[in-house]
Amino acid sequence: MTEAEILRRIQRRLPALRNSSLITGIGDDCAIYRPSGSREDLVFTTDLLIEGIHFLTSTHRPGDVGHKALARGLSDIAAMGAMPRFCLLSLALPTSITSQWIDAFYQGLLKLAALHRVVLAGGDLSRSGQITCDIVCAGGVPRGQALLRSGARAGDEIYVSGTLGGSALGLAGRRGAATRRHLRPEPRIQLGQHLRRRLHATAAMDISDGLSLDLDRMCRASGVTAAIDHVPVFSGATMQQAWHGGEDYELLFTVPRGTRVSATFQDIPLTRIGTMLAGTSRRSLRPRVLFCGEPVPALGHDHFRS
Amino acid sequence: MTEAEILRRIQRRLPALRNSSLITGIGDDCAIYRPSGSREDLVFTTDLLIEGIHFLTSTHRPGDVGHKALARGLSDIAAMGAMPRFCLLSLALPTSITSQWIDAFYQGLLKLAALHRVVLAGGDLSRSGQITCDIVCAGGVPRGQALLRSGARAGDEIYVSGTLGGSALGLAGRRGAATRRHLRPEPRIQLGQHLRRRLHATAAMDISDGLSLDLDRMCRASGVTAAIDHVPVFSGATMQQAWHGGEDYELLFTVPRGTRVSATFQDIPLTRIGTMLAGTSRRSLRPRVLFCGEPVPALGHDHFRS
Repeated sequence: MTEAEILRRIQRRLPALRNSSLITGIGDDCAIYRPSGSREDLVFTTDLLIEGIHFLTSTHRPGDVGHKALARGLSDIAAMGAMPRFCLLSLALPTSITSQWIDAFYQGLLKLAALHRVVLAGGDLSRSGQITCDIVCAGGVPRGQALLRSGARAGDEIYVSGTLGGSALGLAGRRGAATRRHLRPEPRIQLGQHLRRRLHATAAMDISDGLSLDLDRMCRASGVTAAIDHVPVFSGATMQQAWHGGEDYELLFTVPRGTRVSATFQDIPLTRIGTMLAGTSRRSLRPRVLFCGEPVPALGHDHFRS
Repeated sequence: MTEAEILRRIQRRLPALRNSSLITGIGDDCAIYRPSGSREDLVFTTDLLIEGIHFLTSTHRPGDVGHKALARGLSDIAAMGAMPRFCLLSLALPTSITSQWIDAFYQGLLKLAALHRVVLAGGDLSRSGQITCDIVCAGGVPRGQALLRSGARAGDEIYVSGTLGGSALGLAGRRGAATRRHLRPEPRIQLGQHLRRRLHATAAMDISDGLSLDLDRMCRASGVTAAIDHVPVFSGATMQQAWHGGEDYELLFTVPRGTRVSATFQDIPLTRIGTMLAGTSRRSLRPRVLFCGEPVPALGHDHFRS
């Protein structure tokens, strides 16, 4: 089974969102809850970070693990155009972990939290066989204005922030900027605000599992096909790493045709990579992502693909 | 290190809750967030359930695991006097897990969710070496009315719901009602509402780690000492199991002296177990829980106690 298949099995079992304050459930970067009487919608996301699956203690220092645990959640908040409000952390640790490790882990997490004014509000602690972090991030966004991955329309122009493949290059052993990108990804919170308030983006999501898979997800959610003609590649990375590498935590977004998008936002490049075309039917097996006219397989990272 | 020591290390690193909509952070059953303009406060909790730590696949069927994962979170919501609103689930699974296991797991979880009208709104999926569930539960409570564990005052009468030690008895192999109590705990959502609305409880929390440890936590948070003269024991369980067993998921609460409390609520016994006395100083090593005048050690379940 793939992750998408497990998700479909779960969704088939779920009752419809009737008479609920839950606006969006499973299927976007965050769930959206509308508190009664509030001017603000709240968005929620959870992200696992597990030793041996998402990181190795031989390459990630404890501070890197703490940073990355929170960065993964904040990246989802950014993708909704929301401002982070608070987070909760469930942490399960083997008996071999020292108090020094725990201190350095929280130092990495709380430094990033302070940078984005996120309060650590609670969580859970347990023993386990491998280091397991589950971060819950909550954000706030003006009522009805959250950016969804389902909003892209035929004719919209497709953009990405930054360059892609850097994290994969860092994972593959390249030192310097690529390693920093891999160990200490920077959630694009301010950019998410810019997309929502200034660019009136029609859709947005973060690129966590690789452009090929995440763009396929946006196309499925929006019912469109992406025609890509250019991908901005991290210096030294391969095209393969840029398309399928994952963990870049840049933002993928669409804007109405003709929107003026500046070349950079706070020194982060914003690059037009293509155009959304009319989609195929929901059940069609035709490719949803084309690169210079050729279909691109959704090879990005899926934990459950055998 | 104990769990309490790790928590103190984290709390020392946390900035104060200034200019924040977060009303209560680490230290209660739930964090409390006040959405701007809303009549309702939102409460949040996360709970880990890990194979080999909290359950064994040899004793817990997949439906039991799904039920218990959610029940642990809902029990925290009940303890705040809140109504559950939605949940998110992060689930990490070994490669050996079948699609049948996954289906039965979600069936157990979603059956309990339907009973309490809780929507599964999202989460995360990953691989891991052992089955790891982290449930996030969100609840709603009228503004400023959440029940805290810090509200008990000297002179208050102390109560518990149900009988204690049943889950420990079930864990020890006793069949029948004790096994059901261990495998399928029932979160006391309606009782939590009753405590808040009718009994005007001064403090409440759920008994998840054992009466001795959880009562000690309430006494520390409230700055009081508990004088207990009676404990309602699950039929067949020992006094040891009732005091220190854990996983009963009953509610522990206090009411002002003289409050009329009915003997049962919806067939659940409500038993007066003692009285709160004036506390000792925060740093005092004097016992905070007395049973018939003798100190009771806080021996309930702590994952990190060596």
